[in-house]
Amino acid sequence: MPHTEYLWFTTTERQQFVRITDQVRAIVGRSGIGDGMALVSAMHITAGVYVNDWEDGLIEDFQLWLEKLAPAGLLYRHHQTGEDNADAHLKRTVIGHQVLVPITDGTLDLGPWEQIFYAEFDGQRRKRVIVKVMGG
Amino acid sequence: MPHTEYLWFTTTERQQFVRITDQVRAIVGRSGIGDGMALVSAMHITAGVYVNDWEDGLIEDFQLWLEKLAPAGLLYRHHQTGEDNADAHLKRTVIGHQVLVPITDGTLDLGPWEQIFYAEFDGQRRKRVIVKVMGG
Amino acid sequence: MPHTEYLWFTTTERQQFVRITDQVRAIVGRSGIGDGMALVSAMHITAGVYVNDWEDGLIEDFQLWLEKLAPAGLLYRHHQTGEDNADAHLKRTVIGHQVLVPITDGTLDLGPWEQIFYAEFDGQRRKRVIVKVMGG
Repeated sequence: MPHTEYLWFTTTERQQFVRITDQVRAIVGRSGIGDGMALVSAMHITAGVYVNDWEDGLIEDFQLWLEKLAPAGLLYRHHQTGEDNADAHLKRTVIGHQVLVPITDGTLDLGPWEQIFYAEFDGQRRKRVIVKVMGG
Repeated sequence: MPHTEYLWFTTTERQQFVRITDQVRAIVGRSGIGDGMALVSAMHITAGVYVNDWEDGLIEDFQLWLEKLAPAGLLYRHHQTGEDNADAHLKRTVIGHQVLVPITDGTLDLGPWEQIFYAEFDGQRRKRVIVKVMGG
Repeated sequence: MPHTEYLWFTTTERQQFVRITDQVRAIVGRSGIGDGMALVSAMHITAGVYVNDWEDGLIEDFQLWLEKLAPAGLLYRHHQTGEDNADAHLKRTVIGHQVLVPITDGTLDLGPWEQIFYAEFDGQRRKRVIVKVMGG
């Protein structure tokens, strides 16, 4: 049977990227699944999950780049509902909302620089990521 | 064994987003799989599948934003083959071509605002999405 | 049990897209898995895997478009570490770093034009893609 856990986040900043490789690895350990895949998927539509480098400069590059591609503060139609976070929906679309992490020999089968990140674009409130592990 | 069904679409507009959460939920119900994942993947390369908000203003924001990132009507090299839809290939790349929906306790394990959409960028003809459910 | 193989690439160009549909199909054949899914995922964070058209003009369109969205040669913060490839991290984020290919009746269940590509953005050195096949 698959093994499921949820990670909760309340970021201190509205936009904040959090490395979660270790939490995902621990969940895979608890699952007892030695070969398979772990789905790591944001359950809120203004946050994402992605795999890339654990380097502060690059993380800043990502954030500046996403601001250029999907700026805050434009006259989005979504804001006529009272919301102010349309850009967060767009940014999470670029970064991706889920990843599937391979598991081999009882642990995450990642390349040398692959790290899993939670990307929050409208934070400072409780939000959730599902981790579901499948395999044998 | 996995359970597979196909969804067919012939949109009335060339570009049109269609909510498919209910169809995917029904397929998962028919699969008899209570814990696992459902792959929902566009089988044509000018359409996508994504998870985001069911709000008309935001859907318009998405479409205007994709038009800005990947405009129609440019002198694309792909058009030398007689095609006129290079922008549709690019737009579907931004929005994503597939999602993996977790299944827990016999139904879709989605966050409060997560909805699954089919994003058509070159429609008005019959196109297909595969839904494949795996688990136990 | 899942079946896992790795594909190795050393591209001749720094940026190069390589069609890998046939290699993935062969791995699925060797897996003996007749119904399920194959995860195809880049293990390096400056490369991606995507599904789209096998047409040289469109591939050039993709590369020019990614250069516009995430240009090389800007003053990225990541380059203060001595790196010069921040744009490659961003480009791979747009194109996507993994795909999940459905398998039905013993082979890849792809639409008429779907082809799997490895997208290298910082090549000319040995890099790896994992292919993990699951199902029954």
